[in-house]
Amino acid sequence: MKGPADMCTERVLVIGGGPAGLSAAQAVSDLGVDVTLVERRSFLGGTPIAENYASLTPFCQPAEEVVGSMVERLKSSERVEVVLDSEVSAFEGEPGAFVARVATPSGERELHCGSVILATGFQHFDPGRETQMYGYYEYPDVIALQDLEAMLKAGRVARPSNGEPPKRVCFVQCVGSRDRQIGNEYCSKVCCGVASKEAIEVREHLPDCEVFIFYIDMRMYGYWENQIYWPAQERHHIQYVKGIISEVLQKGDKLLVRGEDTTMGRPMETLMDMVVLSVGMEPSPGTRAMARVLGVAQNKYGFIESAHPPLDTVSTSRPGVFAAGAALGPADLEDCASGGGAAAARAVSAIRALAAAG
Amino acid sequence: MKGPADMCTERVLVIGGGPAGLSAAQAVSDLGVDVTLVERRSFLGGTPIAENYASLTPFCQPAEEVVGSMVERLKSSERVEVVLDSEVSAFEGEPGAFVARVATPSGERELHCGSVILATGFQHFDPGRETQMYGYYEYPDVIALQDLEAMLKAGRVARPSNGEPPKRVCFVQCVGSRDRQIGNEYCSKVCCGVASKEAIEVREHLPDCEVFIFYIDMRMYGYWENQIYWPAQERHHIQYVKGIISEVLQKGDKLLVRGEDTTMGRPMETLMDMVVLSVGMEPSPGTRAMARVLGVAQNKYGFIESAHPPLDTVSTSRPGVFAAGAALGPADLEDCASGGGAAAARAVSAIRALAAAG
Repeated sequence: MKGPADMCTERVLVIGGGPAGLSAAQAVSDLGVDVTLVERRSFLGGTPIAENYASLTPFCQPAEEVVGSMVERLKSSERVEVVLDSEVSAFEGEPGAFVARVATPSGERELHCGSVILATGFQHFDPGRETQMYGYYEYPDVIALQDLEAMLKAGRVARPSNGEPPKRVCFVQCVGSRDRQIGNEYCSKVCCGVASKEAIEVREHLPDCEVFIFYIDMRMYGYWENQIYWPAQERHHIQYVKGIISEVLQKGDKLLVRGEDTTMGRPMETLMDMVVLSVGMEPSPGTRAMARVLGVAQNKYGFIESAHPPLDTVSTSRPGVFAAGAALGPADLEDCASGGGAAAARAVSAIRALAAAG
Repeated sequence: MKGPADMCTERVLVIGGGPAGLSAAQAVSDLGVDVTLVERRSFLGGTPIAENYASLTPFCQPAEEVVGSMVERLKSSERVEVVLDSEVSAFEGEPGAFVARVATPSGERELHCGSVILATGFQHFDPGRETQMYGYYEYPDVIALQDLEAMLKAGRVARPSNGEPPKRVCFVQCVGSRDRQIGNEYCSKVCCGVASKEAIEVREHLPDCEVFIFYIDMRMYGYWENQIYWPAQERHHIQYVKGIISEVLQKGDKLLVRGEDTTMGRPMETLMDMVVLSVGMEPSPGTRAMARVLGVAQNKYGFIESAHPPLDTVSTSRPGVFAAGAALGPADLEDCASGGGAAAARAVSAIRALAAAG
């Protein structure tokens, strides 16, 4: 006789409510399978909403509007349960019959599911960490990509030190990426595109402001080249300088940016009103915690390890547990959307196969 | 009374049998829906098989083995029909009730389907076209990425002119990409990774051969940085030179490579035994033809246009017709696999919604 443990639970658990998790949960629901989305924050939308992104790369649509419409569509879908302010605290079982313990504001809850999609995303690199000599925590006018996003969203680009519009702004690329000393050898993939998009937006807000981007390689892969990089240079006159910035210092009410201009082959010192650090991606605390709780392998950076790359992008080391988006490593929005959809197909198929076999 | 036109056909048509199409068809089948895969070639596997790729970027697994196992798995799946040597010649109807005419070796056939996934891929840029001064068709020792793949697959890297192992080999990046004169402003995304992978393989085959890569920006996004770029430099001693190559000429039995070393800020002339052109991606003839036959919008480069980027990666301008992989533009293998899975979820959902409504 078969007990409950032998039956396949026809429900997918999605952990994380950012772009990848929203895409995944929507696709599961559209495939006609029940889905529970557990999000540790009190709202859906993930990092673009939590960190006040003004607009999405590369087309500059308002982040709140686009992500908001994904959230609304998901909430109004059949078969979707959203559980906010909650975290998975324990996990056991096998494909078709997993049991997750979920800590919710109203107490602990047991959730049965047949498969799982991890979409717990990334966090921005903390530019004050270890070897970084950029003064993020010392100088108010040294900010990070997401700080500038918040300014752009609020509609006012101003120096934090005095509230005035900056006349010279620079972006410093690869902060927390491509850096062996801090242990992040990988490239964070999106920062070249995001910085260039923000640079264009600064020029649109402040047409008299000069904008520079100091980079190692300008990684505008695919269409970002023609969608962002050409217009940034030709229409918006962003000044791209191949160079390594070694430190940022205060000098009077300006910031002194020191480094090497690689193309000119000489040391460089230049004064800026505002410096924007293009911080890379690191695994979010949720990604690290869920990898541990669900018992899936992580790579040496702490992201979820892909079990069968490159032609299977969503399997983890644990059967029945899939992953999507920046939980797996640096990812752009298209990666999150595609990965979410692909993970949904796999999570639903896994349940379908077990239900048929059972 | 409902006629056949009102009923939803529970079958997905996948056009193209490369990595994206294989991923899509597999996912549709795994979701329990019938799928017909139409491929114009006499075999499945797409460009990696047709162009004799030795191995897959970034992990160097044998291409034939990995893609072959996808093919075998698909062929042994329930609900999958594979139609080779065939092309869709006409298409009409609406979501849920499309009719495709398919020209097959045994005559024309009518195929009913509820939704479609276009996975018709790319072709390598023809390096003899227009403004390219690299002598691909003039000098036997000037070859392209896929020619070197075929050599690596055959296990013998040799100069076509004399059959001897080369002592100095260089790769020229961005051939047919990032080039406004030929109309391809976009970056082809994968060539930096593929060239570096091949460079490593050349060094493994011929440890005494010096290998150079001339590049504009080294676009090793995400993990390719640590998976390929660091080992290429440190373990395999590939020499990366930021520079623009303007022409390649024959000089005695060597090739004279002329250009500018950007970092050194000076003109450069260097002799090579073999020059490998890192050719970019252009829409395949199948992508152009199917866009026309199915009536879906193309972008100015001829790739299928994404209807709602960036958070919907698979919709085209025609409802019920989805796209995945390099049919949409430059794509790596992970993009193809994720996109194929995401398109499958959408194609199946579309049918499911119509069947429920019908």
